[in-house]
Amino acid sequence: MGDAVLAVDLGGTNVRMAAVDDVGEVLHLVRRPTPPGVTPEQLTDLFGEMAEECRSATSREFIAIGIGVPANVTSSGVLHHLPNIPTLEGAEIGSLVSLKLGIPTVLENDATSAAIGEHWLGAAKGIDNWFMITLGTGIGGGIFVNGEPLRGQDGGAGKLGHICVEPDGHPCGCGSHGCVEQYASATALVRLAAEAGLDVTSSHELFDKWTAGEATAESIFDGMARHLGITLAGLVNTFNPEMIVIGGGASAAWDAFIDPLAAEVKSRAFSESATRAKIVRTALGDDAGILGAARSALTTKAP
Amino acid sequence: MGDAVLAVDLGGTNVRMAAVDDVGEVLHLVRRPTPPGVTPEQLTDLFGEMAEECRSATSREFIAIGIGVPANVTSSGVLHHLPNIPTLEGAEIGSLVSLKLGIPTVLENDATSAAIGEHWLGAAKGIDNWFMITLGTGIGGGIFVNGEPLRGQDGGAGKLGHICVEPDGHPCGCGSHGCVEQYASATALVRLAAEAGLDVTSSHELFDKWTAGEATAESIFDGMARHLGITLAGLVNTFNPEMIVIGGGASAAWDAFIDPLAAEVKSRAFSESATRAKIVRTALGDDAGILGAARSALTTKAP
Repeated sequence: MGDAVLAVDLGGTNVRMAAVDDVGEVLHLVRRPTPPGVTPEQLTDLFGEMAEECRSATSREFIAIGIGVPANVTSSGVLHHLPNIPTLEGAEIGSLVSLKLGIPTVLENDATSAAIGEHWLGAAKGIDNWFMITLGTGIGGGIFVNGEPLRGQDGGAGKLGHICVEPDGHPCGCGSHGCVEQYASATALVRLAAEAGLDVTSSHELFDKWTAGEATAESIFDGMARHLGITLAGLVNTFNPEMIVIGGGASAAWDAFIDPLAAEVKSRAFSESATRAKIVRTALGDDAGILGAARSALTTKAP
Repeated sequence: MGDAVLAVDLGGTNVRMAAVDDVGEVLHLVRRPTPPGVTPEQLTDLFGEMAEECRSATSREFIAIGIGVPANVTSSGVLHHLPNIPTLEGAEIGSLVSLKLGIPTVLENDATSAAIGEHWLGAAKGIDNWFMITLGTGIGGGIFVNGEPLRGQDGGAGKLGHICVEPDGHPCGCGSHGCVEQYASATALVRLAAEAGLDVTSSHELFDKWTAGEATAESIFDGMARHLGITLAGLVNTFNPEMIVIGGGASAAWDAFIDPLAAEVKSRAFSESATRAKIVRTALGDDAGILGAARSALTTKAP
């Protein structure tokens, strides 16, 4: 029997913790709501309870815990820039958790975790140069260069949703305007639909209208594909990647945007690089992040 | 006496070859026009003559030769995408040159070479995460991640001039439109000046008009700074770099664009990443590429 680890996907709404073995099998999964205004100490206690549940359910010991956090993680393990869990700003949660559980803790930005998961067991297995873009409430990104995650100087790399596609475009929560997040996230699709007079509450409903042949829905996806294509073309010219993995809730509308998206990338990026960059869907979906956290825990060295 | 190498900066107009020692001292420099329509064999013969000149002028032997080429260099040393020297498309010039000179040959994209030079002896000494953007006839880029050059899957990474800043903007030589190269290269500044009724033949002349307080020149540099700032903000959000080095002929107009440029980046990028990314001028100027080629030759391993 190989090693097992704990893996956490910490979101603004829910915390999920899984016991995962060394081939990526999820042995047990626990989900709790993220307590509003949670402090580092309260979160550590919550992790302790969830870990105990994983332990008793699986009768396994865990060699490490990996935690994907919606934050920039500095190289020394400090969390910054958590708009959804601001009470953890500046926290060094790794040492608290390690003390509590008695095992090494690895922290990773959640989008990077998802990319690590896809690289381990998903769409990007064996691919060294590639990136993932996640079309959810916002747009996130995880980048691999030469087989390693690109984290940047302060753990702030990969914010691919905040690349400008319209200089004077829609205001963005980040303080800029015209970010691709305002044109291609699930949230943006709903807003764009409303602006076009369509009454939908999710990108899935908009996709249903597209499937039913609704022309307005088609034009919204065309616009989304155009803006996302502009961004991906720039990233293709920047990274010359082998693969682009698209995930997040809006990626379920794949059929509605992939053709115009691929055409936009092809028309804008250098042809050799555009041809090289295979655009594919996430293979792991919502599990990418927790599996990536498990992978980080499995490959960490005890201090 | 330490090792010495040959270093080549191959351009569409000129070839420069230098004998360089292991601390970056240029011992001898030879310059020749690039023969129009040059074949790989002719270029190899030319390198042979230039190498002989370096050898007799310095009485040194060389352990390797590094060549910066205006091309994508694949990992196996094949040149692709050379709009300025199309007769070298598909050439494997490394083996020809190694045979001719009897020493190992290292090929590198010229913008990456310039970044390697700045990392060795210039503005980015000791900096692991940073990129260089070169505002010349076109706009080029060289990227470092975790202390290593980012080359991409086919050597096509770093084409930072071909990031879109105006979706329906000016047509670009690359086939797209609205690329930042059309708004912030030296060439673009001259075009934008002409469109605004200013008669200048270079970015230097436009800078002279700015220095003289010409309002139209100021507005052109403001527009250039805005477009370049949009691009750099996206790259800051993507890479979270410690430094951005700006080079190329138009960087001589530094005073005319740096303040509005820095303001645009600050207003658009995430504040922690924007604060981290120090924007500086190239320290090596036109020598960055040849020194980078020397560095590549010095650090290569004989096969």
